[in-house]
Formats: sequence, structure tokens, C-alpha cells
Amino acid sequence: MRFTSETSSDGVSEQLFTLGEIPGVLWTPEDANGPRPLVLMGHGGGQHKKAPGIVFRAGRFVAECGYAVVAVDVPGHGDRPKDEEYDRIATANQARADAGEELAPLIASFQALVARRTVPEWRAVLDAVQKLDHVGTGPVGYWGVSLGCGLGVPFVAAEPRVRAAVLGLGGALSSAGDATRITVPVEFLVQWDDERVPRAQSLALFDALGSAEKTLHANPGKHAEIPAFEMDSTLRFFARHLR
Amino acid sequence: MRFTSETSSDGVSEQLFTLGEIPGVLWTPEDANGPRPLVLMGHGGGQHKKAPGIVFRAGRFVAECGYAVVAVDVPGHGDRPKDEEYDRIATANQARADAGEELAPLIASFQALVARRTVPEWRAVLDAVQKLDHVGTGPVGYWGVSLGCGLGVPFVAAEPRVRAAVLGLGGALSSAGDATRITVPVEFLVQWDDERVPRAQSLALFDALGSAEKTLHANPGKHAEIPAFEMDSTLRFFARHLR
Repeated sequence: MRFTSETSSDGVSEQLFTLGEIPGVLWTPEDANGPRPLVLMGHGGGQHKKAPGIVFRAGRFVAECGYAVVAVDVPGHGDRPKDEEYDRIATANQARADAGEELAPLIASFQALVARRTVPEWRAVLDAVQKLDHVGTGPVGYWGVSLGCGLGVPFVAAEPRVRAAVLGLGGALSSAGDATRITVPVEFLVQWDDERVPRAQSLALFDALGSAEKTLHANPGKHAEIPAFEMDSTLRFFARHLR
Repeated sequence: MRFTSETSSDGVSEQLFTLGEIPGVLWTPEDANGPRPLVLMGHGGGQHKKAPGIVFRAGRFVAECGYAVVAVDVPGHGDRPKDEEYDRIATANQARADAGEELAPLIASFQALVARRTVPEWRAVLDAVQKLDHVGTGPVGYWGVSLGCGLGVPFVAAEPRVRAAVLGLGGALSSAGDATRITVPVEFLVQWDDERVPRAQSLALFDALGSAEKTLHANPGKHAEIPAFEMDSTLRFFARHLR
């Protein structure tokens, strides 16, 4: 793990790093010392580790809860090289969608393909980050919606360090099997008028989660229109479970 | 409006009253003086104005938020005389359910019948209670699940003083028409394994609500098993909307 820059503002320290070929960012309280809860965040499709929705939430996790937060670029995103296989599939999928094919199954199978790389990458990121003195081996949470849900479900299913997860804007097509193996508390976000994920598939993914404690929050609006008050709920959800 | 008793404990004052033939209870902070938000609570079927779930929540609204809370017995419940028509219908419905008929439509049509009496009663209760110095004409909220949702949807649709409502454990069969006329923010509770209200009908009622801001919270468990953390969410929901 190699740190390439460190800045800080408003009490939040931001360290850019690479772990092998994976570019990442770690946010911690400026004066962080000793172990603390860690939230791994998965960004959305076409976004990257410092997308505004990631940076905004990470800032609140750090400033209001004292957590460490880590996010990395998904293959083919952000500072990572273009991935020829992914690009070929994405182009083919776009053509099929333009020709009238249903979008959700195409997205789902693409996310399942990407997850085969991101699950081991994210586990390695946890290994590396938890070795740092100002992160340590506290409880781990996961936050990811849309692509971050498609990749997050297999990650949370595979990674026993994760104690609680916020997921959503994703459907059951690719990940219902993994979802049944998730047993930690989940807060699951659904946009009632999601133009990308059919409502029934969102509800089916929530239904498939094996967790005894899971709570679905559905709000009107399109895919990207999660209301601001859900972030307050997310903070309280992690506060309950990442002690 | 006639007060019949007044007690107080833990900073919460409890006044029993009758308004015409309606027995009710008003909870306020012990030192209440001047206008404040008022929450009207509708109890569940077979319950009454001082059922444990009502008393517990009312206590938190008063103690933590300084609200006034009022609840009255639904006709045929609590301290009200038995209602022969309701009893006859309830007995007939039970026989039909025992004979294998679907329960939800029977419950729905019964609730629609009861609502024709409770909506004007509850509006009269608001009139009376808001004339009291220690309640006044602040913003009004409504809380009711199960029967309290079946009666609450037509009440909230009819009563412009209500600014926000927590509803749930109810289906679209009886009240979808009224639901479309609701425009205030709603927090809507669904029990994912509800044995009394089919999931699809719960989701259809949420869908029917005309509110621009509505948020559905679904949790695993049966009809009566709303998890405790939802009460924290309810408090924050009212705090956002009953300013």
C-alpha cells in the first residue's frame, strides 16, 4: 500500500493511495489515533472513488461519527485503465438496449462479471487499511447503491468482517443467490419510480436477503433521487451496528 | 368537553375526558403552557385509547418532543358501549373467514364503515383539544397503524390541519381512493411477513398516496412485530414536519 498524497480540510484527512493496481482514497478524522469503525463505500456505475455522492457521505461518516472511510475505483472506472472486455460488453449492451432489449438483465449480468474482480480486491483493501494505526480492526460497514449494490451484495456475502450494510437501487437478477447468504443487518434503499431497476426486482432483492434485521426504505423519485433525509437514517443505522 | 381525571408521572400529564359520547385521553408535558404540536393517535382493532402501544408512543412524543397527544376510543372499543351493528358484522366476518374466505377484504369494508363515524368524531376532538391553552393551534400530526391506518387514511385525507402522518399495516382495499387525496408527508410502515394484510395490498396503498414526500419502511416480521427502532424514526419524522 502506497500513499501518494495527503490533504485535510474541516477536520477530515484524505489520503490517496494505490494498493497494487487499485487506486483508492482513505478518509479519517484529522486527529485519528487507534482503532475505529471502517466503512467501505462502493461507487455507482460510470462514477469513481471521489464522486460527489461518495465524498459527501464519507465526510459525514468521518466528521459526525469518527469513522474511517475507504473507497477505491472499480475496474474500468476513475483512475484505472480502460478495460477492453468491459468496454466491449458495455457497448454491446447499449446496442441491445437501444434495440429495445430490457436493460435490467444486461446490467445485472455485467455487474456479476465485475464482482468477480472487485470482491477479492475489496477484501485486500480491508486487509491493508486495517493494518494502519489510525484505522485498526474495528467493526466494518459497507455502503453502496446501484453498481455499489450489485458489487456490494457479493462482497458483503463473502466478507465476515462486514457487520452492517446499506444497499439499494439494485435488483435481484444478478445477486439474489449471494443475498441469501447475507446475515448482517441491512438498510435497503428503493427509489419507487426507478427507471433503471424494476420495482419488483428491487423488492425481490430485499426479500432474498438472509438477514434477520433488514429494513427497506422506499421513496418516490427516480434512480438518482434518494432524498437527503435518508443520509441521516444511514448515519443512525451505522451508529446502531458499528459499535 | 368534560375532564374526568388528571394524573401525572415522569413529567407527563394525563387527562381523561369525554367529548359528547366519546371517551378520550390527552397527554401533555406537565408544565405545558401555550400552543404546541398535537399528535392524534388512532388505536388498533380490539384495542383502546390507552393500549400499551399507544401509551408508550404518546409518552415519548410528550417527554422527548413536548407535543400534546390525544387518543379516543373508536366506537365499539374501550369504554364505549358495544355497538350491535359492528358486533353483528364482526361475527359474520369471523364466520366467513373461518369458512375460508379471504380476510383482507372483510377487514377493509368493516374499516370503511367505521371510518364514516370516526372521521367527524376525530375532527371534533381536534376542535375541542386545540381550544385548550396548553394545546393551542400548533401543527397537527396523525399516528395510526392497522385499524388506525384504515381509519387514519380517510381522516388525514379529510382534515387539512394534519401536516404529517405515520400510517401502516394497512392495505389499499378500503382506502386507496382517500389515499390519493393525501398530500402531506407520510411515513408508511409495512411488516414484510404480515399475516393480516397481503404485502401487495400494503405496497398498493403506499403507491396510492398522493403525497410528494412519502417514505415506506418495511421490516421482517408479522403484523404486530414493528421493530423498536421505527419509533426513533417516527420521532424524527414528526420533528421534521411538525415545526
